Amino acid sequence: MKILLIGGRGTIGKKVAAALDNHELIFAGRGGGDISGHTGGGIASRDEQVDIASPASIEKLFQRLPVLDACVCTAGTGYYGDFQTMTEAHMTNGIRGKLLGQINLVLIGKDYLREGGSFTLTSGVAAEMPAHNGTTVAMINGAINSFVLGAAQELKQDKRINVVSPGLVEDSMERYGAMFPGYDPVPMARVVNGYLRSILGAGNGKVIKVYQ
Amino acid sequence: MKILLIGGRGTIGKKVAAALDNHELIFAGRGGGDISGHTGGGIASRDEQVDIASPASIEKLFQRLPVLDACVCTAGTGYYGDFQTMTEAHMTNGIRGKLLGQINLVLIGKDYLREGGSFTLTSGVAAEMPAHNGTTVAMINGAINSFVLGAAQELKQDKRINVVSPGLVEDSMERYGAMFPGYDPVPMARVVNGYLRSILGAGNGKVIKVYQ
Repeated sequence: MKILLIGGRGTIGKKVAAALDNHELIFAGRGGGDISGHTGGGIASRDEQVDIASPASIEKLFQRLPVLDACVCTAGTGYYGDFQTMTEAHMTNGIRGKLLGQINLVLIGKDYLREGGSFTLTSGVAAEMPAHNGTTVAMINGAINSFVLGAAQELKQDKRINVVSPGLVEDSMERYGAMFPGYDPVPMARVVNGYLRSILGAGNGKVIKVYQ
Repeated sequence: MKILLIGGRGTIGKKVAAALDNHELIFAGRGGGDISGHTGGGIASRDEQVDIASPASIEKLFQRLPVLDACVCTAGTGYYGDFQTMTEAHMTNGIRGKLLGQINLVLIGKDYLREGGSFTLTSGVAAEMPAHNGTTVAMINGAINSFVLGAAQELKQDKRINVVSPGLVEDSMERYGAMFPGYDPVPMARVVNGYLRSILGAGNGKVIKVYQ
């Protein structure tokens, strides 16, 4: 399979990539897919530059790629910060990137996916169980989950879409653990399995929750 | 109680208002709160103009009102339309109005609410069970539900926030019924009760689902 991994060099993405190394992988990200210093992974892998906050950048990416079997997005940032002083402006980056970025991947990319191809987006536990200071991220994750429910029943040619909603993942414990007191860290293997079920399975419109 | 009803002259809002007519009601909306030709309702009721798509308009509204016991929003529109040709632009109105509009009501309004006061927002069944062509509305409703989960644990001075998620309401059957084949119409009394539980009750961070 030809699989596009947006954010495929990130914390979650690189573990998903490692589990797909018998496939043709195309890594993409703002830094050309290689934000972690790694290269390679998968057969005939390559790296591409994309900024999902820009519809034009997404369109250009799909135009220069071959027809894809799967498009996976593990990229996107949200805003954690004080609610008392939060304004709309604090939400803008997250809305533009993680939310509209992933939505645009689908709206634009659906015509570049082969029949039966799939999208796998990423939300997160905050949709149901936000941490302190995580209201913006909660909002974005809830939006992605519900978007996928709608999109799943609209895609044509047997194309599928699912979303993986990870909890606090083990590999982010050091960096983010202090922001999530009492959140059980999720083993990376479980998170990876969530993505594999979506990419290699037959499910459509599933919110694959990888926590608790 | 002094209760601000944004969209209080709309389909749902006017029924909520009727059930609160022993309170001091302030109706607000783009047309000055009176989009349906009715006036009055509640003791000492008044009508105010606000466009929740504009943070400046929201700020001005709160500045000229007395300290409130409750802020209720039943206003906001989404986009229903063909997914195949949908672009980000189709989502912009819904994001600006129903989503960021309601969020800004909370971010701005929280400082104008009395201690123990409450917000009641409105999402909808599409968050879980979108209709055909309803992906944008699904996304917006899912975002509002998760925003409320986050905001509920951040508000100070015992302020509360809940969201009512109505199904297809009886009074909208004639106008919207054809877009929702097989959706059980929800009696208005049940919808109103959802709002009353939030406004007059003690719950916080509840997604009050009024369907099925």
